[in-house]
Amino acid sequence: MSDSGRGGRARGRGAANTGCGGHTELAPSSDTARRYSRANAERFRRELGDLLRIPSVSTDPARAGDVRRASEWLADHLAGLGADNVRVLPTSGHPLVYGEWMGAGPDRPTVLVYGHYDVVPAEMADGWTSDPFEPVERDGKLYARGATDDKGQLFVHVKALESYLRTGGAAPTNLKFLLEGEEEVSSPNLRPFLESHRELLAADLCVISDSSMRTIDEPAILHSLRGMTYVEITVGGPSQDLHSGFWGGAVHNPALALVEILSRLHDPEHRVAVPGFYDDVVPLTDGDRQEIERTALTVEQLMASTGAPGAWGEADFSIRERVSARPTLEINGLTSGWGGPGPKTIIPATASAKVSCRLVGNQDPAKVYELLRAHIESLVPQTVTVRVDLLTTGEPALIDHRTPEMQAASRAYERAWGARPLFTRGGGSIPVVADFSNLMRMPVVMMGYGLDDDGLHGPDERISVEMFHRGVETAIVYLEEVASLPR
Amino acid sequence: MSDSGRGGRARGRGAANTGCGGHTELAPSSDTARRYSRANAERFRRELGDLLRIPSVSTDPARAGDVRRASEWLADHLAGLGADNVRVLPTSGHPLVYGEWMGAGPDRPTVLVYGHYDVVPAEMADGWTSDPFEPVERDGKLYARGATDDKGQLFVHVKALESYLRTGGAAPTNLKFLLEGEEEVSSPNLRPFLESHRELLAADLCVISDSSMRTIDEPAILHSLRGMTYVEITVGGPSQDLHSGFWGGAVHNPALALVEILSRLHDPEHRVAVPGFYDDVVPLTDGDRQEIERTALTVEQLMASTGAPGAWGEADFSIRERVSARPTLEINGLTSGWGGPGPKTIIPATASAKVSCRLVGNQDPAKVYELLRAHIESLVPQTVTVRVDLLTTGEPALIDHRTPEMQAASRAYERAWGARPLFTRGGGSIPVVADFSNLMRMPVVMMGYGLDDDGLHGPDERISVEMFHRGVETAIVYLEEVASLPR
Repeated sequence: MSDSGRGGRARGRGAANTGCGGHTELAPSSDTARRYSRANAERFRRELGDLLRIPSVSTDPARAGDVRRASEWLADHLAGLGADNVRVLPTSGHPLVYGEWMGAGPDRPTVLVYGHYDVVPAEMADGWTSDPFEPVERDGKLYARGATDDKGQLFVHVKALESYLRTGGAAPTNLKFLLEGEEEVSSPNLRPFLESHRELLAADLCVISDSSMRTIDEPAILHSLRGMTYVEITVGGPSQDLHSGFWGGAVHNPALALVEILSRLHDPEHRVAVPGFYDDVVPLTDGDRQEIERTALTVEQLMASTGAPGAWGEADFSIRERVSARPTLEINGLTSGWGGPGPKTIIPATASAKVSCRLVGNQDPAKVYELLRAHIESLVPQTVTVRVDLLTTGEPALIDHRTPEMQAASRAYERAWGARPLFTRGGGSIPVVADFSNLMRMPVVMMGYGLDDDGLHGPDERISVEMFHRGVETAIVYLEEVASLPR
Repeated sequence: MSDSGRGGRARGRGAANTGCGGHTELAPSSDTARRYSRANAERFRRELGDLLRIPSVSTDPARAGDVRRASEWLADHLAGLGADNVRVLPTSGHPLVYGEWMGAGPDRPTVLVYGHYDVVPAEMADGWTSDPFEPVERDGKLYARGATDDKGQLFVHVKALESYLRTGGAAPTNLKFLLEGEEEVSSPNLRPFLESHRELLAADLCVISDSSMRTIDEPAILHSLRGMTYVEITVGGPSQDLHSGFWGGAVHNPALALVEILSRLHDPEHRVAVPGFYDDVVPLTDGDRQEIERTALTVEQLMASTGAPGAWGEADFSIRERVSARPTLEINGLTSGWGGPGPKTIIPATASAKVSCRLVGNQDPAKVYELLRAHIESLVPQTVTVRVDLLTTGEPALIDHRTPEMQAASRAYERAWGARPLFTRGGGSIPVVADFSNLMRMPVVMMGYGLDDDGLHGPDERISVEMFHRGVETAIVYLEEVASLPR
């Protein structure tokens, strides 16, 4: 833990919540806090560097001690800058970190900040220019695993709170932090924790900074994420691999049967052919389509980004709509029989496919699984057997961007970032968003401070230094905007 | 090398061909030779055991010395029993063994015996009851790798020659042996050898014993083998695996494109849907179908043998016809994207399939490749790329069973085996048969002495002791039958 700046460590870890409303009279000023954040920019980055240096790789059991060390670092840091009730909460996996500052009082709104301090693996051999766990600044970027996903982005909110507390001594709203150590392993313990800690986590809205924008001049607020139904389809037939010369032509080849099934999951117009699949999809309005059009993707951009020879998909929808606002069905893997070099003349005993659907509001992942399973079973002849196993689900999240909380976020970007943000839809899935939105019934505002090409999960992950500091300022201003909302 | 019986080793290895016709007056008697073979049965098996003990695994480079040792054992053995011009012929891989006995003279026919002394791997861990390279007799079976495929079966002919030479001093026909050490690795050096040694190998017919019958009471002469065109289809699209959330719905998934191609290689009636595929197939006559019906396979037998839930294939053809007399197209393997446990949300960069066609007379493997490639290319949209690589081909062999050579073989079984053989069609491929038949323009007679369930290529490979000895007697009688054919 590093120097946490001026001011005493008045509220120690685990200290009781003072709960008084007296601070509201200190008239916290976002301008002062912003100036403080710029004045301490270098220290903020040095502290972030200390956090990035801890290899909190949640996917690697051997790193469990480092994950715990990162949780303790964050708890100490929050307590050090004045958060109350700070705790490292054990789970059956990696711990959660909780901390709060309730000094704005019960008349002021409470903002819950969610972030995750765990990271995916990184090795020099993957192509890193410098040690992924030894942060380095080059050309205005801070390079390290977790720089943008999500240590750098969650730290923005920690430093926003500090900037208020170290200047006027109070923030314009109450703040709660919930920092997870298992986001990269699908958050197995988060949902049960949310369900059993509704009172602790009660808030007027949730802010999540774990997303990105195309360029620094195009800040974006995500208001939609796709959900998921992921299955494994396994076709069986013979009890073991057969000699294709001895039995070819008289036994239904499981690989062929699988292919026959998979080829009937789309119609010739590239729509998903599972009956009922689109029933619950919220139709796009003209306004939705205009908003999406602001981040239009051309065929040329798609080809340059993916290397694919062209675009594909539903002709009635633009490329950006296809990758964000429309549900899809993808084959993620095929496994059957011989895959080594050269020929092997077998009829494989089994064939399997990994298949996943990306879902949009208001599709229900469990219902989609049932539709998919029923459709596949209807396609299977008596000459083979089939199993459709559900591997994972995630609910889609579709958040109205005309709400006061979202409009307040838009104003915060305009004031602090210097550009009006786009309201965008993400093609991927962040299940925790649906959990806060659907389970906790809390408005979720996704204010991402990364760039689309920050290299998350790849080598040379980085965050723009300027964007990190603008993020702190935007987070500072956002609390002021939230405080001014009619309650 | 073991005791090779009575009589001198008059013709040493590498000795010149005497070429004289004097022996034809010795009136060799198959009865005497048969009695000799039964009287020496135990020694024959002991000698076969010595050959089986050599682990001549051609697929394992570390066993190259053992393969060579087996070739030398056979050469010494042939020379020891009176063969001439015996040679171990090096190739760029494992050697061929050649030996001949031309003592019947130019007025008598010459029979070329082909066999292979190499074997596939065998380990106790595969489920063997006893050491695969330490032959053991149990319940009338001799257990060892290579017992039936093909050391045991080729040795039948070696012992038939010995039985003549050690009794009347002569055989009723001339004999040439060509014994290969690379059959289990697709005979890469055989065809070039045949092409460059036409004079050495000149013969009136070729006998191959490398096949099997259903039961000891149903001896079988194979007269048809399927050929093969084996390809690998590779579909490409994006330059690397893509995040299915970021690009799903707008990029043609190579796994889906592959599935779409593969699903269009058969029509709904399970026929191969490649245009022109059946053009060169010799139609089955009523007589052909009656002969095939003698080894009819029921759905229940198919289910019991394969474990498949039912039969599949061309409704207009019986199960036995489908697995032997009809061409097929099988998927031998599928490889794409994620095949490990759990989910991974990618659009795979590539997807590939191993696909092979079994061919029947008179299909041309090269032409079938062109038809298949053209059909696949016609199915591929601009949104992906495809490659169809030819991995291997083998010509089909369809041999008229009404020829004098085949009818002579039938009579030999009737006399020595005690049952009239069935003329059967094999579903598998033995490319060397087509090489002798089509390249050398030589009648090929496939007199198999194994059982369908001898476990070849599996654990506890075995040969029936009684069938081995009946094989020697049948081979003895066959030479007499061949000698009596009008020339």
